Amino acid sequence: MNKPLNITQKPKLTKKGQETRSRIIVAAAELMYEQGVARTTIEDVQHKANISSSQMYHYFKEKKELVLEVISYQTSKVIGNHRRYLSDLDSFEALNAWRDFIVDIQIKRNCEGGCPLGSLASELVEINTEAHQEIMSSFFEWEDSIRKGLRYMLNRGELNSNADPDKLALALLAALQGGLLLTQVRRDPEPIIIALDTMIEHINSFKKI
Amino acid sequence: MNKPLNITQKPKLTKKGQETRSRIIVAAAELMYEQGVARTTIEDVQHKANISSSQMYHYFKEKKELVLEVISYQTSKVIGNHRRYLSDLDSFEALNAWRDFIVDIQIKRNCEGGCPLGSLASELVEINTEAHQEIMSSFFEWEDSIRKGLRYMLNRGELNSNADPDKLALALLAALQGGLLLTQVRRDPEPIIIALDTMIEHINSFKKI
Repeated sequence: MNKPLNITQKPKLTKKGQETRSRIIVAAAELMYEQGVARTTIEDVQHKANISSSQMYHYFKEKKELVLEVISYQTSKVIGNHRRYLSDLDSFEALNAWRDFIVDIQIKRNCEGGCPLGSLASELVEINTEAHQEIMSSFFEWEDSIRKGLRYMLNRGELNSNADPDKLALALLAALQGGLLLTQVRRDPEPIIIALDTMIEHINSFKKI
Repeated sequence: MNKPLNITQKPKLTKKGQETRSRIIVAAAELMYEQGVARTTIEDVQHKANISSSQMYHYFKEKKELVLEVISYQTSKVIGNHRRYLSDLDSFEALNAWRDFIVDIQIKRNCEGGCPLGSLASELVEINTEAHQEIMSSFFEWEDSIRKGLRYMLNRGELNSNADPDKLALALLAALQGGLLLTQVRRDPEPIIIALDTMIEHINSFKKI
C-alpha cells in the first residue's frame, strides 16, 4: 500500500488534523459496519476515535457528512483491493485469486458483516438521497473495474467472441453481493464460494479453446 | 390464495382481534420495508394501522415481537409466490416465468425497496440474535424450495447428471439477492435481469440433449 486508503484530504487541515479526521472516519466506518448507520451516533464515533466533543464538532458537524465519508472510505477499500492485489482481474488466474481473497476475508471474520458497501447500500438507498448517489457511483466504479479485466481477457483471446464482458461483469458483481449476504446470514462461507465458483465456471464456458 | 398469507394466528383472539393483529403486522412490514426497522417506531405502526396505543399494546408489547412477525410475514409472502404462481420452479418454462415475475415486480415498483427478506437480513443479522435465527431459516426454506424444483428437473431427465441441484439452487438464490440489491441501487431492472438470465443460461448448459 503506497498511499493511504481513500480518505478525502481537506487542504486546510494540518497533517495532524488530517490524521485525526481520518481516525474519525475509520472509527465511524467500523461502527457503522458492525451495528448499522442508524444505530451509530456521533457520540459513539467520538468515543471510539477517542476525541473530545469539540474536536468532533470541529471535523464533522453532522452525521450526514460523516456517512458520505464512510461510503467513500469503504469504496476505495473495496475497489483498492481489486486494483492492488489482483492486477485488474485480467486472467482466470487473477479471477481465482480474487475469489480466494474474498472467501478468505469471510472466513477470517467468521462470516460476519457481509459486504461493507452492500450493507451501506441496503440501509441507505431508500432514505438518504445523497448517500444513494455516492453508493450508486461506487457500484458503477466497481462494476467497471471487473468489466475492464474481462474485456482484456476477451481482447487478448482468452475468451471467445460469445463472451459479453458487460453482462458477465454485472452478473459476477451480483453473485458476489448475493453470495456475501447469504454467507453473512448463514455464518458459513459456502454461499460465497458457490456463488463465485458458479460464475467463474460460467465465464470459463467462454474460454477460447 | 386459499389461506391468508403467513400471519401466525393467536388462538385466544377473536376473529376481529386476529384481523387487527394482521393489520398491525402488515403495516409494520410496509413501514420497515420502506424505511428500515431501526427507523420504524411502534408509534409509526400504530398510526399507520389506525389503532389506539392501548390496542397496540394489547397486541404487541415490544417492537422485538413485531419484528419477528414481520420476518415471518415476508417469508411466507416470498416463498408463497414461488409455490403459488410457479409450480415449484420445476421446468425451464417455470424458471423463466419466475424470472419474468420477479423482474415485473421491480419494474412496477420503480426498482425501489429491493428484496423484502434480503433487506431485513442486511439490517438485522448482526444486531438481533432472534431475528437472525428466523431469517436464516427463511433463507434455508427458500433455497430448499428452489432446490426441489431443480432436483425434479434432474430426476425427470431435463438436466443431465452433471447438474448439481444443491449448488445451482444456492447460486441462483445468490444471483437473485445480488441482482435485486443492484437493481435497487441503480433504480434500473438491468441488474436483476442479467443476474437471473445468466444463471438460467448456466442451468441451461446442463440441459439434456
